[in-house]
This record gives sequence, C-alpha cells and structure tokens, in this order.
Amino acid sequence: MLARDLPPDRLLTDPGTITAHTTDRSGTRPDGEPLAVVRARRTEDVIVTLRHAHELGVPVVPRGSGTGLSGGAAAGEGSLVLDLSGMDRILELSADDQLAVVEPGVITAELDRAAGEHGLRYAPDPASAAWSTIGGNIATNAGGLRCAKYGVTRDSVLGLEAVLADGTVVRTGRRTVKGVTGYDLTALLTGSEGTLAVITSATLRLRPVPVATATLAAYFDTFEAAAEASYAITRAGVEPALAELVDGPVLQAVDPALRERGAALLVVQCDGAGAASEAAAVARLLEPLATTVERTGDPARAEALLAARRLALPSLERLGRPLIEDIAVPRSRLAEAVREIRAISARHGVPVFTIAHAADGNLHPIIVVDPALGGLPDAVWEAAGEIFALALRLGGTLTGEHGVGVLKRQWVAEELGPAAHAVQRRIKEALDPRGILNPGKAL
Amino acid sequence: MLARDLPPDRLLTDPGTITAHTTDRSGTRPDGEPLAVVRARRTEDVIVTLRHAHELGVPVVPRGSGTGLSGGAAAGEGSLVLDLSGMDRILELSADDQLAVVEPGVITAELDRAAGEHGLRYAPDPASAAWSTIGGNIATNAGGLRCAKYGVTRDSVLGLEAVLADGTVVRTGRRTVKGVTGYDLTALLTGSEGTLAVITSATLRLRPVPVATATLAAYFDTFEAAAEASYAITRAGVEPALAELVDGPVLQAVDPALRERGAALLVVQCDGAGAASEAAAVARLLEPLATTVERTGDPARAEALLAARRLALPSLERLGRPLIEDIAVPRSRLAEAVREIRAISARHGVPVFTIAHAADGNLHPIIVVDPALGGLPDAVWEAAGEIFALALRLGGTLTGEHGVGVLKRQWVAEELGPAAHAVQRRIKEALDPRGILNPGKAL
Repeated sequence: MLARDLPPDRLLTDPGTITAHTTDRSGTRPDGEPLAVVRARRTEDVIVTLRHAHELGVPVVPRGSGTGLSGGAAAGEGSLVLDLSGMDRILELSADDQLAVVEPGVITAELDRAAGEHGLRYAPDPASAAWSTIGGNIATNAGGLRCAKYGVTRDSVLGLEAVLADGTVVRTGRRTVKGVTGYDLTALLTGSEGTLAVITSATLRLRPVPVATATLAAYFDTFEAAAEASYAITRAGVEPALAELVDGPVLQAVDPALRERGAALLVVQCDGAGAASEAAAVARLLEPLATTVERTGDPARAEALLAARRLALPSLERLGRPLIEDIAVPRSRLAEAVREIRAISARHGVPVFTIAHAADGNLHPIIVVDPALGGLPDAVWEAAGEIFALALRLGGTLTGEHGVGVLKRQWVAEELGPAAHAVQRRIKEALDPRGILNPGKAL
Repeated sequence: MLARDLPPDRLLTDPGTITAHTTDRSGTRPDGEPLAVVRARRTEDVIVTLRHAHELGVPVVPRGSGTGLSGGAAAGEGSLVLDLSGMDRILELSADDQLAVVEPGVITAELDRAAGEHGLRYAPDPASAAWSTIGGNIATNAGGLRCAKYGVTRDSVLGLEAVLADGTVVRTGRRTVKGVTGYDLTALLTGSEGTLAVITSATLRLRPVPVATATLAAYFDTFEAAAEASYAITRAGVEPALAELVDGPVLQAVDPALRERGAALLVVQCDGAGAASEAAAVARLLEPLATTVERTGDPARAEALLAARRLALPSLERLGRPLIEDIAVPRSRLAEAVREIRAISARHGVPVFTIAHAADGNLHPIIVVDPALGGLPDAVWEAAGEIFALALRLGGTLTGEHGVGVLKRQWVAEELGPAAHAVQRRIKEALDPRGILNPGKAL
C-alpha cells in the first residue's frame, strides 16, 4: 500500500485537493477524477510512488505549479497526481562554477533572484516565471523572452536526477559546461513532458548578469511592418537579448492609451558590453519603419516599456478564456505568418490576439473564448487547426515552447512524420514499458 | 546482394582501399579487416547498405574523413565501412533564415567559408575543421575553440535526416530556432557516434560574423598561473569567444622561441559589439598575473597569436604518436586539474603536454608515445587512467568533445553510473535491435 510506505502527510485523497490538481492553466479537464494526490517532499517519495504505480499499472501525472498551457498536467480518471511543488529547495548555488542544483519545485523567478545575489542569473524567463517551477520548465523545455539570445531551458540544463517509471534513479549530464560521454539523456528528458521520467533535481547553468542593458520600444502603423522590422534586425546580424511583438488588439486589451500610439509595438533589448552600440544600430534600422522609437538605458523605464508585453496574458484573461497557440516559423516567414493569421481570424469570425518572440519566429496567436459558451465553438477549433497547418506549411512547428500536452496531440504525427513518431514511441516503450508516466500526453 | 543493389562505383573491396578505411586519427586498429567499403553518394546508398546489413546482421562502421581521436571509426573483422565523405554537397544556404542544409561529408571549414560569403559563419570550429566532416562533427558532438561562447555542435544543429539500422529514414528537428514537438531526437543522435543512426543530412544554424573581434595573448611564469588567470575572466563575468591555454612543453614543441617568452600562454578573443571593451576588461584582469600581455584588433595578428595553439597537434605529431586526452572539469577546478596532471606525469615518468579550452574547463593532456615502441607502454595506460579518474573525482567528464569511441569505453560505466548506462543500452536496443551500427563504440 502506497499510504503505508509514504510519510503520513504525503498522500492526499480529499475531493477538494484532488479537484484542485486535475488541470493546468489551459483549463483542459479530462473525464473523471484522479485517485489521489501525492505531495512529494523528497526523491524517496517519488521512488516509492512510482514503484507502487508501476507494479499496479496506475497512471502517474507529474506536476509543478500547474502553469502549463497545453494540458500536460491534466489528470483524469484513475490516475495518481504526483505534485512536486513541495520539493522546492535550492540545494546548491555555486558562484565559482556558475551553476545551481535545485529541486524541481523551485519557482523559476526565485532561482533567478537567488542567483542575482552572486551577480548571476538564470537565463530562461518564461512569461510564467513568477509562478512556474523549474521542473515544469524542464518538462516542457520552456522558452521565454531572453531565449532570443540565451537559448531555451535545454540550453541551461547541465544535468538531471530523475526517477524512471519503475522507481530507478538515474543521473544524467554533469557539472561541466561540456561533455559527450554517452547519449544526451539530459536533452532527451528535457521537453519530454513527464512521459519518460520524473525529474527530482536539476543542475542548471547560471550566467553573469550583463554589464549593461539598452531597451527600445517602437510603434508601427501595422503589425506586418513591426514583424518586418524585427526581421530586419536579425537580417542585419544583431542578436538582441529579446525582441517582443505585441499587436493592436492586445495593446487595446492592456491599455487603450497604448493602442492609440500605434497598431503594433516592438520592444527590443540588447545587453552586454556592446548593448549601447547594438541598440544604436537597432534604432537606425527601426527609425525608417516605425512611427515612434524610444530608447532607454534605465532599467525601470525598460520594465515600463516591457509592461505591455508582460501584461498581455493577464489582460486577455479578463476578456475570457484564452486559448494560447505557440507556433514557430523560420524568421524570414514571420510577416507572412502574421498576414495569414489575420486572414484565418477574419475567415472564421474568431478574434485572434497575437504576441510574438520575434527574434525566434515564435508566435502566440491567442483566441479568447467567451466562458459563457461552456466549451470551444467549432469555429475556434477550425481557426486553431488552420494556424497549426500554416505553421507546418511555412516550415515551422506546432509548439515553440509550451509543449504538446493534450491540446496539440492530434497534430504531432503530421509534424514529426511516421518514422520519427515511431522512433519516439519506441523510446517511450524502452523507458516506460507499462506506459504509466503521463499517458496520453506529448506523443 | 549489396553489390547488385548499389550503383557500380559504390562498393569497394580492394585491399588498399579497405586498409585505408580501418582507422581514424587515433591510430586504433582492431583485429582483422573489414569486408568492404561502401562509398555512399546519396541517401539511397545508405538505405540500401543498411537494409542489407540489417538483414544479414553485418556490423556497419560509418565514417567521414577519419579525423576522430577516439577510434570511433575503427573498423574490424567482418564489418562494412560506410564512407560518407563523398556526400559532400551544401544543399541549401539560406541567408534569410541563417541556416544551411548540408550532406554529412561537407568539410566543416568549407561550410564556414560558404557561410562567410553571406556575412554568416558556422560557429563550431574543432581543431580539425579543415579536414573533418559535418557528419563526423555531429556524430561526436564536436567542440572547438569558439564553443566557449557559441556552444558545441549540438547547439548549431536544428534538424537531421538520418537512416535507422533497418534502412528507415527519419527526419528530426526543424528549420526554426525553437520547437518542442516530441522528444529531442536531434540531440539524441548528436554525439551518438554512429551507434543509433547514420546521418545523411543536417540543417545547421548559421550566425552573423561578429562586427568586431579583439584578441589578447598573455604569457605566464607557470601553467597554474595561466589557468587561474583564465578562471578570473570567467569569474568576472566576461564571456570570451575563446580562451586557449598552451603549456610550456607544447610551446617548446611548436617553437622554442615561444617557450622562451614564458612557461604558459593564454590566448583570449572577445567578439561582437562589445569586443573592445571586453578585451580591455580582460587585459585589466590579466596584467597583474601575467608577465606580458599583448592586445590586437587586427585579424592577421590575431591569427598569428593563435598559431601556437593551432600548431600544437601537428608539432606534437612530429615528436611521436600523440594520445590525446579530453577531460573537462568544473571551471573552478582547472588549476587543480593542471597541478594533478603534472603530478601524474612525474609519478609515471610519462611526459604530458597540455592544451586547454580554458573557458569550458576542457583540458587536452597529450601523451606522446615513441612510435618505435610499437604499442603503448603500461606507464602510458596507467597515467591515462589516472587522468580519467582525476576528471571524475573533480566532478568532470572523460570526454569534453572527442567522444568515447573505443579508447574510453572501459571508463564509461563509471562516469554514467549503472542506471544511466542501462537506460542508454535500452535506447540503443530500441533503435538498433540487431546491434549492427558501430558496435563496440561509445557505450
């Protein structure tokens, strides 16, 4: 019995707790209720839980703080929710080696703050950083604003401790920046959405806080013009730390006064020793294309310029239930993608709000659904489907950083192709032969 | 019959060709001779070869231009060598999307040169770049000088086309910078040393050529002082494009006049818009520690300063057969590693020459063996073994960038631990159930 082998406060079966652990920020709610919630406090709890689940063939749904946008943590009938948010200790923070060893429940922004005390930072900064956990970030290979320059979560994960489906503990990677002994299990587990193993600790690369930062905000007459301008920056060989696009409808939702300034906003940040000269180069590129360009080296003003981007999702959530797409396209196709999304929106009569990590070609078209409708109208599904098809047609992907979860499953085979899809399933079977880890997700 | 299904010029069975394809730059030569060499010109040749080999259970040893240093391409009794060096076309070079699609036999430096015509470059630059192939670079996840700032080969691979052991073609990854659909098969195949699939094309990220470069060369009284100085740069938060350490014995081998200038050389390059100010910061850090510091913004002079590093291996090859180790340690342990390597060298009476990618903590201790001895004396094996043990004791790895091949196989289990090693074998079995792909390597 699991209850007997776990410390007394770990296994929760009251209906209120169970219901609170059945979904994530996507709002996806499968049929039926999980059996129980295990609130893990240490690796041993995870081992014990998986051993029992493996023996009994019970599905296990690992979760952090439930900020996922694709239903990766949605837990249905007969499953066991494995909540890792209580494993929240920073085990080590080495300024000497510029790395941290953390448990999976550590809040992303909290690690960044702790690193800051040593002049370092944790580069990946998903929009959910204030609430999301490192474990969830690794499970989805989360992106964020800064990954334009510093890469996605995978690029900051040096090594992992994880528990396999049968309760075996594996350690992957290392404490060094480089290393090629064996297959790259660290990268394999990163982004596997809890389907291959449960992460119980991570060795993460920290980076020096840049010596300088310069931020620009430019308004444009059209969203396409803003997309073209962001591509001009890439094309000119400047690598900004972030380049965020916000369209007119999002500006309107955040603050009508912002919408009055233009039909689209592009915020660009350059950092490092060359920040000022890079920002000057960016300004020269933007000025002929934009209606206004504002530049600042002041961090507080920079945060104010970025606020329109950061407030996008909370503002849209006030309007209804946001269905957040996450396509990425080759950067040269960004403006084309923007035009096509607008046409899809018009064709189906579905309002689409768009923000984008422009330097990565990663677009978030957001369909806001009236919650009074209960479910998702057919037109919403059709528009979403056409947006996915558009991404693939342009040589892109269904998901740049949020993961497949349950929401995008039906499209996965089309993107991967049958052979790669089959290889993925073989790997899944090799690591989790009974299929207990987050079944029905990712693949 | 393979001979019947391949175009006439592909299958080579003359003894001279076979002997020329049995080893790599490590000089490792297994017992016996391969059956034949397939010189592939297109993906179809690889498919046909693997289908036959799979059916008959014949081991296949894929190879590029044979510059590997770990015996990864060593081919023994009864195997089929699959030579991919003839698949050497750059299929696409998109300045718009800053990527190239290439066949595996493209020479690394050749791609970099082609990218240069568009103001771009292929960042990974293993010391063998003038001869090594992209396919070999991907198979070993090769590093190089610039990976201090731009990452290893994996960080530049966006996607792959590969042929599985049974002849099935898979496509992994994408043309976008970001993407998280499915498991990261691109990273799994990168560094798998030809044991999981044969790469037939790669989509590679190109990056803008930096707008400026500044180079410094500093001489020191001791190698430890140079190692400490390089760590001071990391510790100060400066991210150089490269930081190369060369010890006194190597300087002596390259040019006795260099050895007269100091007991160790550190060459540091900063690039990008902040290059000059970063180089100034580096100079301020080095000046109190070094005997001389020279700084230049001139590319020709920079190449001259780097020449001592680039000439290290050819110079040592004049002295005998170099056995090149490739350990990496956490950067804070670099000076300690250097001291310990010196002690190991003295204890066994084995001269060790050391160069290092200092910013990565990646050391290449090189034992030069007198070819007149025929094989490797016991003292050499013992010293090499102690160097591996040292790397693991310091929290490091057996191989930073060269791969395991056959030379480091006996140490792999110790670094990975039994659980991770077992997971790797399960993945190998899932993808290559008959074990025909480069058996006896990597794991």
